[in-house]
Formats: sequence, C-alpha cells, structure tokens
Amino acid sequence: MAHRAELIAVGTEILLGNIANTDAQILSEHLAELGINVLYHTVVGDNPGRLREALELARSRVDVIITTGGLGPTYDDLTKQTICETFGRKNVLHPELEQWLRDLFAARKRPMTDNNLQQAYLPENCTVFHNHNGTAPGCGFCEGGVHVLMLPGPPHECELMFRTGAEPYLRALSEGVIASHTLRVYGKGESDMEMLLRDKIEKMTNPTVAPYAKTDECMLRVTAKAPTAEEAEAMLKPAVDEVMAVVGEWVYGVDVDNLESVCLAALKARGATLAAAESCTGGLIAKRITDVPGASAAFLGGVVSYTNGVKANALNVPQALLDEHGAVSEPVAAAMAEGVRALTGADYALSVTGVAGPDSDERGNPVGLVYIALASPDGTVCKKCEFGKRSRDHIRMQAANTAFDMLRRELGRT
Amino acid sequence: MAHRAELIAVGTEILLGNIANTDAQILSEHLAELGINVLYHTVVGDNPGRLREALELARSRVDVIITTGGLGPTYDDLTKQTICETFGRKNVLHPELEQWLRDLFAARKRPMTDNNLQQAYLPENCTVFHNHNGTAPGCGFCEGGVHVLMLPGPPHECELMFRTGAEPYLRALSEGVIASHTLRVYGKGESDMEMLLRDKIEKMTNPTVAPYAKTDECMLRVTAKAPTAEEAEAMLKPAVDEVMAVVGEWVYGVDVDNLESVCLAALKARGATLAAAESCTGGLIAKRITDVPGASAAFLGGVVSYTNGVKANALNVPQALLDEHGAVSEPVAAAMAEGVRALTGADYALSVTGVAGPDSDERGNPVGLVYIALASPDGTVCKKCEFGKRSRDHIRMQAANTAFDMLRRELGRT
Repeated sequence: MAHRAELIAVGTEILLGNIANTDAQILSEHLAELGINVLYHTVVGDNPGRLREALELARSRVDVIITTGGLGPTYDDLTKQTICETFGRKNVLHPELEQWLRDLFAARKRPMTDNNLQQAYLPENCTVFHNHNGTAPGCGFCEGGVHVLMLPGPPHECELMFRTGAEPYLRALSEGVIASHTLRVYGKGESDMEMLLRDKIEKMTNPTVAPYAKTDECMLRVTAKAPTAEEAEAMLKPAVDEVMAVVGEWVYGVDVDNLESVCLAALKARGATLAAAESCTGGLIAKRITDVPGASAAFLGGVVSYTNGVKANALNVPQALLDEHGAVSEPVAAAMAEGVRALTGADYALSVTGVAGPDSDERGNPVGLVYIALASPDGTVCKKCEFGKRSRDHIRMQAANTAFDMLRRELGRT
Repeated sequence: MAHRAELIAVGTEILLGNIANTDAQILSEHLAELGINVLYHTVVGDNPGRLREALELARSRVDVIITTGGLGPTYDDLTKQTICETFGRKNVLHPELEQWLRDLFAARKRPMTDNNLQQAYLPENCTVFHNHNGTAPGCGFCEGGVHVLMLPGPPHECELMFRTGAEPYLRALSEGVIASHTLRVYGKGESDMEMLLRDKIEKMTNPTVAPYAKTDECMLRVTAKAPTAEEAEAMLKPAVDEVMAVVGEWVYGVDVDNLESVCLAALKARGATLAAAESCTGGLIAKRITDVPGASAAFLGGVVSYTNGVKANALNVPQALLDEHGAVSEPVAAAMAEGVRALTGADYALSVTGVAGPDSDERGNPVGLVYIALASPDGTVCKKCEFGKRSRDHIRMQAANTAFDMLRRELGRT
C-alpha cells in the first residue's frame, strides 16, 4: 500500500513570515522519490493546544506524520512532550544520548547548561535518529498503525537527519519508487501544452504527464511508479518519446536547469565562443550565462550599450544607421551583434535592442518592441519581437529567453 | 478584535517539493504588519475533496482564510469552484473581467484559448482583486463572518495582488492602522544590529523596532499602531531618528527598494552618469541598475570583460599590467574602471574583478577574492574583498552590493 504522509512544521517564526518552511519542500522532494504521497503540509506555532489538534487530525487522515522543529533546548520547544501526550508514550531519558551530548559540549569546550539535557529525552521504544549537524536528536515510532517521525527545524540538520535516519526507516516500510523526467518548454504556454497533449494527459495513468507553468516558460513532468528505479526508468523512456513526438519542437531540454545552461553546454560541446551586446536587457544575458559555473570556457564577454554613444564607440555601430533607423531597429540590432563579435573575436554573438518600458522611446516605439540578432559564422539573423505592454522585468526576461532560444536552435541545427 | 487567519496553498507541485510555498512566507510577513495573527499554514494538492475539508476546518477555527493558487485556466485549477461550493456562492462570469482578458491577449498579440475564459469567473458579489502581473484575477468576500480571499499562486502575482487588492480589503476590517518604516542596512548583520539596538528593542512598545535578516543585508523595521495614519506617522518620525542616531552609518536608505535604486537616485540628483566594467560579476551590476525604470537617465552602459582579451581590447587595460599582476588584482581593477570611464565618458565608473568560484583561478587566487574599483572625477579608489568560500551566486551578489555601497557612500560624501 502506498503510504500517505503529512508534514507538520512547528514554529511561530514561520507563521510570522520570518523564515520559510524550507523543510517541507526538502522533505516533500525526498518523500516523492520514496513513493510516499504527501497529502498535506501544516504549520502551527509553538502552541501545545494547536499542535495537539493538528496531530489528532493528522493521525485520522494519514499513516506517516513527520514533524519538523521544536526539538531544541528552550522552553518553546514542545514538540516531543506534545507528541508523547497525544500518542500515549512516555518521554524518557536516553542515557546514551545524554553521554553523547556531554561529550559534544566537552569537545566544543562549552559548558552544557541544564536545559540542553531535555534533548536526551525521547519517547520510549523509538528508533533514534542521530543529529550530525546539531544537538537535538530526532526519532521515529509507530503507534496504532501511524508512523510518527520527529526531525529538527534548521534545514541543514533536518535534511541530513532525513537522509541518515528517517529515509532508512521509511524505506523499510514502502514498496516501489517514483521517478520522473522534466521536459523544459520555451515558446508555448501551459494551456497550449495542455491542448496539444490533452488526450495523453487524460489517458495516461502510469506513467503520467502533467504541464506546469513557470514564468515565461512551462514544464512537462513525466512520472512513473514502479517496484524499482530501473523499472520506473524503463517505463519513462517510451512515455518521454511519445510526448516529444508531439511537442519536441518547443522542448529545449530534459532535466536541464535553464536555457542559458543548455546554450553553454552546446557551445562547449563544439568548442565555440559567445559574446553579447545588450541595450534594453542591460547585462541580463551576460549575467545569466555567467551564473552558470564554467561559463568562462565559452563566454568571452560583451558590451552593455545603454546609449547611442556606447553603441557607436564600443561596438562601431555606424552613426548613420543610428540616425536613420534609430537605436531600436533591425539594422542596429544586426550591427550591434556583428560589432561585439568583431570586438571580442567570438564565434557567435547575440544582441538585443528594444523598449523595456515603462515608457515608449523618443521615436515613439511602443513598450515591448524588441529586436534580437544572432551573428554567427554563417551570417546574421534578426528577429522582431512584440512582447506587448508588460512589466519591465518581464520584457527583459522574455528578450533574454528569446535570444537564448534562438542560439540553442541555431546550435542544434548544425 | 484582532483577526485570526489561515493560509491555504493549493498545489500538488508544493506537496511534491517542486516549488516552495513562498507565498505563505510573503503573506505572513505582510499580515503580521497588519496586526493579523496567522495561526495556520496549510497546503493541499489539486484535489477538490481535500481542499473542501481544509476549507471547512479553516472556517471553524479562523475568521480570515486566504487561499493561494488554483486560479489559472487549466483543469486542475479548482480553487474557485471548490470555494463557491463550500461557501454556497455562485461562480459567475464577470463581463468586465472577460473584456479585460480579451484586451490583454489582444495587446499581447496572442490568441485567447477558451479555457482562459474560466479566469473571468468569480463568486457572486465579491470584491475583485485585479492581477497586474498575470491573467488570473483574485477576490475577497465575507460569508457567515468569515472572510475568504483568493490570490494567485505565482509569488510575483500573489504579492502584488496582496498589496493592491487584499491589503486594502483587510485594512478596512481592522481598527486603527499599523504603519512602518524600513531602514535598509548594508555592511552589518542582524545580530550586530540587535546588539547595538538591544535596549531600544527591549524598551520600545509602540513604536517598536525589530531587525530582520535578508540575504547579505538586513532591515530594521520601525512600526507604530495608532487610530489614524497621521498619528502613526507622527509617532514613527522620532523613533526612526533615535534608531538612525545609533546605526545611521550603515543605513543606506529608508523605505527604498535596494542599493542600486539609491545609487541611481543619487546620480540623477546631481546629473551625473555611471558606467561599469565587470569581470566576475559578469553583467550583474549593469543588469541590476537597469532593472530600475529610468536607468537610462544616468547609466550609460559598460563592458563585461570575461577574458583578458576583452579587458585589453575593449577597456584598454595594458597587457603588461595583466601579465604582471594577473586579472584579479588591484591595478587591473583600477585600469578597468578608468578604461570604461574613458570609453563611455561617464562621470563615475565601477569595476569588479575576482574569483567567483567554484574553483580558484589559474594563478591560485582563492574563491571569494574580489577587487572592486570606483573611478570618479576625484580619482580612483580600490577595495580588496575576501568574501570567503561561499556559493558563486553569493559572491557575485556580495561583490555587486559592495560596489553599489562604495558608490552610494561616495555620492553621499560630496
């Protein structure tokens, strides 16, 4: 039987918005891989009454409860006591944990205050989860068919304890694994994808395919459940192929990080180099490609030409071209790409010139009008884009994405 | 009476750990400022049965329910229908929203597929919240003493709709107003701020002052509660002055967006211009300053010199300097700033050269070593920074922040 889980985070600081419930995301990702269905995330404050109600509700609707937080030494750490009361277990001193704590403080040459001893108390007859990143141990036990696991709140403690303690505990319970591949799509939205794949989305049960919207792009996730990772993978392969046969034209990669890393990998694979000349994107293309570690193997640099003076001086865009067509025009986009290609000696060069807004430019070009050029050993191509009246950030992002998509298509073509 | 709130996020992708429940953190922070107590965060999947149970539970224990997600055009977007069923409201077409959607798609020059029309349906007699960053409107209504507010899932849509739609709705429910000013601090951390301001933090009750950590900077929020906005403001003024007297040295602005917008405003105020020459930040400084609308009034552009060739050709950094000191050095940082200042004719120029990682450079300079120079009409200053072995993103962000902080201090000095 597939297990059903609820994650309960305990901490007023989450409800105040001081910190995010990072643990829930980390644990959900790991639990999905184990084939455990997470049905609910719940956050309650450091309040024993509300925590108890949340635990009672959880035990009525799931068979795996994982709490995060509230295991520390201070007076507001009350997860253990409340769980013991709710599930009728004694909270007892574990002498081996007391010794471990005393040794730990001695090694750190710090006195151990009395409240720290609280951390050596855990429910009777539990599986202890050791904390390799902090002082609060966790544990797991089963009561009335419900597994209760307690993990510490700080994400680096929580994740490590999950992997070293909770995961082995849970693996022993579960049958099967869930595996997935993510197809990254640019140039078609979530609703278009759903239209194109509607019959597959509806018919497929295992594997399944589902579209997700991301800002200015979308993802298709193909997911399979099987007894082993190998069997899941074997089921995924034909499903991915089937989806690719329909929408492959817009898929820029499978299980990849983003458009810029796909571009960088394709450039490196052919030993080619890239430069960028940016007007309205103002350095965004350069910034994004240099976000990727190892970018220096293919990216030489570029020019941010926010004024006509810089376009003329640094990129050698002819003044006559600027006067005749204006900075936001196809000839200037092409001259910028060719200019930065000559300046840097790069094989490929991208350029962007347009109106990011909030106002139209002095020639009356509307917000969202952007020209993007790609200069390559085969010549220069230019694309006119009308992104419409959207936010400045959005137009800049679309322009950069479109530029990267032009480049990855060009690199994939040859 | 203080309101009690529950946030319900709807989205299987959160339960799968694909995305974090970012909205819950953002909304919790805003709700705390409004004096609304958030008692629970709940996450359920795209499952009408479980969503309905969560809504029934929430209406039994809080008087403000805010849902996020599930308002989009696809078949798994079922928040509205489920809320309407649970609270006995009709889900009706709002003709003005239909028109707005049709206009939006027309302006974007994209066909509007039928499923998009779903987004023009909202509960009868609700307060519509317009979506300025997307296509799904939200709304609020009151049923049986419980206020139900629906916001979209994508964080940038959710936050903006909260501020423009939900916040005014909620403010109208509460007595008195809560007003605050936010002091932005660079160069000192949250715990330093807490130490320096400890007695004020402890003694002040209304207004209060509280430090918040942000990535690589921190904020001090001074908050007052009063019957009217004017009275709250009158209470805030002396409290802000009192805090500034202690920590003003590190405060780069009050109620400002970020370091780059402070720099841009200071440049514009004196009619001065800026350029940037970037190596390890790879365009991040240019990107950030051109994120700010109106950047073209002061920012001329720059060069991303990711290789020595570009440093020499585009910035006129003498080859001898590169050979003798290496690219990551004080003389090269200074020559880059001076080079881009000469190329663009800017009054001020920033440059950055360093090792962002993940590996040390070919001369053995360690990850985190960064030189930042500022060339100005008064000459060039250079700062050596050792950010230590942190992530590539973090080092690049710290380098850009440090550069902007140098500039805003220089502009503030004269």
